[in-house]
Amino acid sequence: MKLINLVGDRFKERPSDCLIDSHALMVRGGYIKYVANGIFSNFPPLKRVTRKIEQIIREEMDKIDGQEVMFPVVMPASMWEESGRYTSIGAEMVRFTDRGKQPLVLGMTHEEAAVHLVREYANSYTKYPFMIYQIQTKFRDEARPRGGLIRVREFTMKDAYSFHTSQEDLESYYERAHKAYENIYRRCGAPGVISVKSDSGMMGGSVSHEFMLLTPIGEDSIAICKHCGYTANVEAAKSIIENVRDADSEQLAEVNTPDCHTIEEVCNFLKAPTEKSLKAVIYQKNTDDSFVVLFIRGDLDVNETKLTNYLGCGIHPALITEECGLKAGFIGPVNLTVNTSYVVLYDESLKNANNLVCGANKVDFHFTGLDMERDCADIEFHDFAKAIEGGICPECGEHAISISRGIEVGNIFQLGTKYTKSMGMTYLDENGAEQTPIMGCYGIGVGRLAASVCEASHDDFGPIWPMAIAPWQVHLCAVRPDDERVKSAADKLYEDLQNAGIEVIYDDRNVRAGVMFSDADLLGVPLRVVVSPRNLDEGVYELSSRDKKLSEKLNPENAVERLKELIISMTES
Amino acid sequence: MKLINLVGDRFKERPSDCLIDSHALMVRGGYIKYVANGIFSNFPPLKRVTRKIEQIIREEMDKIDGQEVMFPVVMPASMWEESGRYTSIGAEMVRFTDRGKQPLVLGMTHEEAAVHLVREYANSYTKYPFMIYQIQTKFRDEARPRGGLIRVREFTMKDAYSFHTSQEDLESYYERAHKAYENIYRRCGAPGVISVKSDSGMMGGSVSHEFMLLTPIGEDSIAICKHCGYTANVEAAKSIIENVRDADSEQLAEVNTPDCHTIEEVCNFLKAPTEKSLKAVIYQKNTDDSFVVLFIRGDLDVNETKLTNYLGCGIHPALITEECGLKAGFIGPVNLTVNTSYVVLYDESLKNANNLVCGANKVDFHFTGLDMERDCADIEFHDFAKAIEGGICPECGEHAISISRGIEVGNIFQLGTKYTKSMGMTYLDENGAEQTPIMGCYGIGVGRLAASVCEASHDDFGPIWPMAIAPWQVHLCAVRPDDERVKSAADKLYEDLQNAGIEVIYDDRNVRAGVMFSDADLLGVPLRVVVSPRNLDEGVYELSSRDKKLSEKLNPENAVERLKELIISMTES
Repeated sequence: MKLINLVGDRFKERPSDCLIDSHALMVRGGYIKYVANGIFSNFPPLKRVTRKIEQIIREEMDKIDGQEVMFPVVMPASMWEESGRYTSIGAEMVRFTDRGKQPLVLGMTHEEAAVHLVREYANSYTKYPFMIYQIQTKFRDEARPRGGLIRVREFTMKDAYSFHTSQEDLESYYERAHKAYENIYRRCGAPGVISVKSDSGMMGGSVSHEFMLLTPIGEDSIAICKHCGYTANVEAAKSIIENVRDADSEQLAEVNTPDCHTIEEVCNFLKAPTEKSLKAVIYQKNTDDSFVVLFIRGDLDVNETKLTNYLGCGIHPALITEECGLKAGFIGPVNLTVNTSYVVLYDESLKNANNLVCGANKVDFHFTGLDMERDCADIEFHDFAKAIEGGICPECGEHAISISRGIEVGNIFQLGTKYTKSMGMTYLDENGAEQTPIMGCYGIGVGRLAASVCEASHDDFGPIWPMAIAPWQVHLCAVRPDDERVKSAADKLYEDLQNAGIEVIYDDRNVRAGVMFSDADLLGVPLRVVVSPRNLDEGVYELSSRDKKLSEKLNPENAVERLKELIISMTES
Repeated sequence: MKLINLVGDRFKERPSDCLIDSHALMVRGGYIKYVANGIFSNFPPLKRVTRKIEQIIREEMDKIDGQEVMFPVVMPASMWEESGRYTSIGAEMVRFTDRGKQPLVLGMTHEEAAVHLVREYANSYTKYPFMIYQIQTKFRDEARPRGGLIRVREFTMKDAYSFHTSQEDLESYYERAHKAYENIYRRCGAPGVISVKSDSGMMGGSVSHEFMLLTPIGEDSIAICKHCGYTANVEAAKSIIENVRDADSEQLAEVNTPDCHTIEEVCNFLKAPTEKSLKAVIYQKNTDDSFVVLFIRGDLDVNETKLTNYLGCGIHPALITEECGLKAGFIGPVNLTVNTSYVVLYDESLKNANNLVCGANKVDFHFTGLDMERDCADIEFHDFAKAIEGGICPECGEHAISISRGIEVGNIFQLGTKYTKSMGMTYLDENGAEQTPIMGCYGIGVGRLAASVCEASHDDFGPIWPMAIAPWQVHLCAVRPDDERVKSAADKLYEDLQNAGIEVIYDDRNVRAGVMFSDADLLGVPLRVVVSPRNLDEGVYELSSRDKKLSEKLNPENAVERLKELIISMTES
C-alpha cells in the first residue's frame, strides 16, 4: 500500500509517559492508541504484525495436532463456580450480571470452557489424547497495567488445552508443546527466549514453564545457572544454602540494642555479619488476618510465592499492633509467646546454624549466640528464601546462579486433574472403569510477544522487525517523486513487487528524504529500497536493511528477484 | 486430518429445543456447544468455516482499500458518553465497573472507537477518504436470543468505518462497499442474498441497506416489488395506499355495538369491510408513559419503526386504565377528549376516506359514515402503516409488492456526521476551514452468515457447505479399512491429497458404511471419495458431491488431479 494512505501518525518526540522503549516506539510509530488504562486500539501496522504472529502460532499448534476452536469471551459464573475459581480468583476477574440478572464473567483464561466443551465428547479412552486451542480476546483487570502492550488488561491470547489418559502421555505431549513454543519464538524472530521452571500460581498443577525474553525492563526475575544451564523463575527457584556451622557454640546472651530497628542496624551495632543473624518477617493471612512469623537468615529475602504455596492462601505484610503480642524489630525464636492461631515458620537457611544474632522478644534487646539446634527444639525447616546472585544451583550444586530480568512471553502447565475432577469430567478406560483425564494448558499473549520482539529488537529510531512478522517486507521510498524518472521507476517497481506477491509499503510523498527515512525507521520494515535521482544516474536502486547489516546497489533488472531471495533467506522457517 | 481425532460428537436425533434446521444441524454435526443463553463455543468444523468466511471478508475489505485495525472489546463509558449513546442505548449494552470503579462497557459496535482512533490523525483533508475495519468479538445483551447462531448475544463481527469529506464521496464509496458485500455473499456461496433499503435505527444516519438471505425462518419481513425489483425492509418500506373515496358520503350515525371489542368484530357485526373502518392503536412513550393515539385504516397494521422514528423516542403498547379517559375498544377521532400530553396521529391510509366505521368514544357505541375531510378538520396524515402483500410499489406504482421473510446477514449505513460531530472530530479543508467528516459503516456477522448459509443450503442429513467455506474440501472414506487393500489405497490417497495442498478429512474408522456416510453428511464436505473393496475390484474410487449433482468413478491414477480441478471449479472467486 501507499504510505500516504496509511492510517496513523508517526512522530519524533518520545512521549513522556512511556517508560520503556517498545511502548514509546509503538506510540511514535502509529502502532497503538491509548483507550483506557491497559486498553489500546491497534493501528494497521500492529494489526499486520499480530496477524502474522497469530498465523505462526496457528501453524505450530496445528503441527502438534491442535484443533482450533472458539470459546466465549463472556461466560456464565456457574461454569467458574464448578471449578471453584469464581471465588478463588480476586478482582482481576470482571464479574457482571446480564439483563436477566444472571451472573457472568469475562474470560481471562479458558480451562473451564475447555472442559465444558469436551466433557461429553471425550467419554472414552479412545478419544484421547487431543488438544484444542483458540486465539481470542481476553480481559484481566490488572491492578497495575504498564509498559504499553507488555502488561495490559485486554489482550489477544492463544490458549491451548490438552487432555490425556496418563501422566506419561501428558509429559510427552508437554515436551512437544515445549518444542512448538521454541519454534514459535524462533520463527517470530525472538530466538533469545528461554524457558524457565515456574510457579503454577492460580492455574493449579505442578510442573510448569514460562518462556522468558531476557531484558532489563522485564518484571520477572529469573535464576540461571551459568554452569549447567538450569533456569527457573525466582518465584519457583529452589534456594540452596550452604549452612556453615561454627565449631564452637557461644552462650546465648541478651544484649541491649537501643535504636536498632532493622537486622542490618543490629548486626552493624554488634559487628556481626548479617549471615550470622536470624531475622523475623511477619505477614498476615488474607483469609483471617492471623499472623505468620517467618524466621530466615538475616541476609536473605523471603520468596512470597513459596510461602503462599506452603500456606495455601494469600498473605500480606503484617500490621503489628500492641495487642498482637509481637515486639516489632525484636522478634526472635527464643521466649516467643504467640497466640495459637499464629503460624511460626523457619527457613532452611537456619538449619544447623549457630552463633546467630536474633531478637529477644523484648524491646531494645537482642540475643547473641543463638544455636538453632540447642535453643530451638522440635522445629522443621522449609524453603522460603529467594534465590540469590551467586547462590548454589539446585541442579548441579555449583555456586553459579545469576539473576536476570525477563518478560514472560508464554507459559505451559501440566495441570493434572484440577479442572477435570472439579468439573466432573470422566472417561471409561480399556476395562470400562471410570477415570479422570489429565490436562495440560499452553498460553501465549500475542500483543505482548509483538511488544517484546520490539523491545528486544529496536534502535533509537524505531523497531527492527524480523522479516516473518514485519508489517511489510519491503519499504520503497521514491525520493524526489516530483522527478518524473523517479516517479515512473518507483511506480513500476511498486507494481512489480506487488505482482511478485511481495508486501510493500510505498512512500511516494513529496517530502524531504529525512522525513521519509525517519518514517521508514518507525515502521521498521526489514528491507528498504530507495529510488532517487542520484541512484538513477548510476542506473541502480539503493537497498539496505533496517538492521544495517546489508547495504547494496540493486540492479533494476533483477531487483524483484534479489528482494524475493532476501525475503526468503531472512524468514525463519 | 483423521475423522477419528476430530473433537466433537455427531448424532442423528434432532434436539427438541432447536426450532430451525441450521441450529439443529449445527448441534447434531458437532459445530456448536451451548454455553449460556445466546452464547456458544465453536467446535473445530465451525471454526474452520468461520475462518474461511473471515478470510473472504478480509480480502474483499482490502480490495476496497480497507485497513485492518483492532478496537477493544471493553471500552470506557466516557467514550460512549461523548456520542450520547451511553444513555440512548438500553439494556442490550453491558455496563460494569472495573476494580477502580471506572465505568466500562462491552462493545456491541465500534463507531465511537473508530472516531477515537482516527480523530487526531485525520486532521487534514489530505488524509481522506479512508476506511478501517476489524473482525472481532462483540456482545449485545439481546432479550431473546434464538435460532442457534442466528441471533446470539456474543458474536464475531466484521465492522468497517469509512471517513469522507463530502456526501458524494461517501456515496461513491458506499457503492463500492455494496459491491464488496455482494462479492462476499457470492464467494461464501450465498448468492441469493439481496440488499434491501432499511431503517437506520440506533446507528443514526439516513440511507442504509440490509443484506437479506430470503428464508421462511427469517425474522425480518421484506417488501419486494415483483414488477420493478424495489426492495425494502418492511420496517423501512413506504406504504402507499390507494384511497378510494365513495361518491356519496353517508351521515355520521351512532350505532350500538355490544360485545364488539376488535375492529374485525365491529365490521363483522356491521357487515362493513375492514378497509371501510378506522381503528385506533394506542401506545405509550417509553420516556414518560404519555399516550400516543394512532388512527389507521382497519385492515392495516402499524409499522412501529416508522412511529418510533416520527416520535423520536421508543414506545410500548399502552396499558389503558379508567383514569386515562380513553374507552378501550371504542376510541375514534370524533368526540375524542384527550389530555394535552397525548399525541394523536393519523395514517395516510385515512386521507380522503369516507363512509368509515369508527369508535364513538363511548362504551358499546361506534359511528358509521365517518368522512375524514368533513368530520376531522385540521389534521395531518403521515405514513405509519406496514407495507402489505399486493400493495403499491413506491418506486414503480404497480400493485406488485410481495412480502418475504429474510435473515439479515449484513448491513451498511451512510452515517453522516452523527459521531464525528458529537465526538468533536474535525479536519481542515483546502481553504483551511474546519469541517466535520462524514462517515459510513459496514457490518457483517460471521457466525450468523455461516448459520444462514447452512440454513439456505442443507438437507435432512446435514449442511451442504459451498466449497469456499467448507470445513474441508474432500471427505475421504475408507469403507472396510480392515481390508488391507482398502487401507493402503486410502492411506496413500490421503497422503497424496495432503501433499497436493487439498484439505481432506479422512475417515478410516472401522465402522459400518452407514455410520461413515451419515457422519460425512453432517460435516457437509462438498466432495466425497469412497475407497471400498468393491470399488477396488473395479479399479476405481467412487466420487460424489454432497449436493448430489455429481457422481463419478475416479481413476486412481489421476484422482488428485481431478479433485483439484473440481475444487477450483467449485470455488467462487
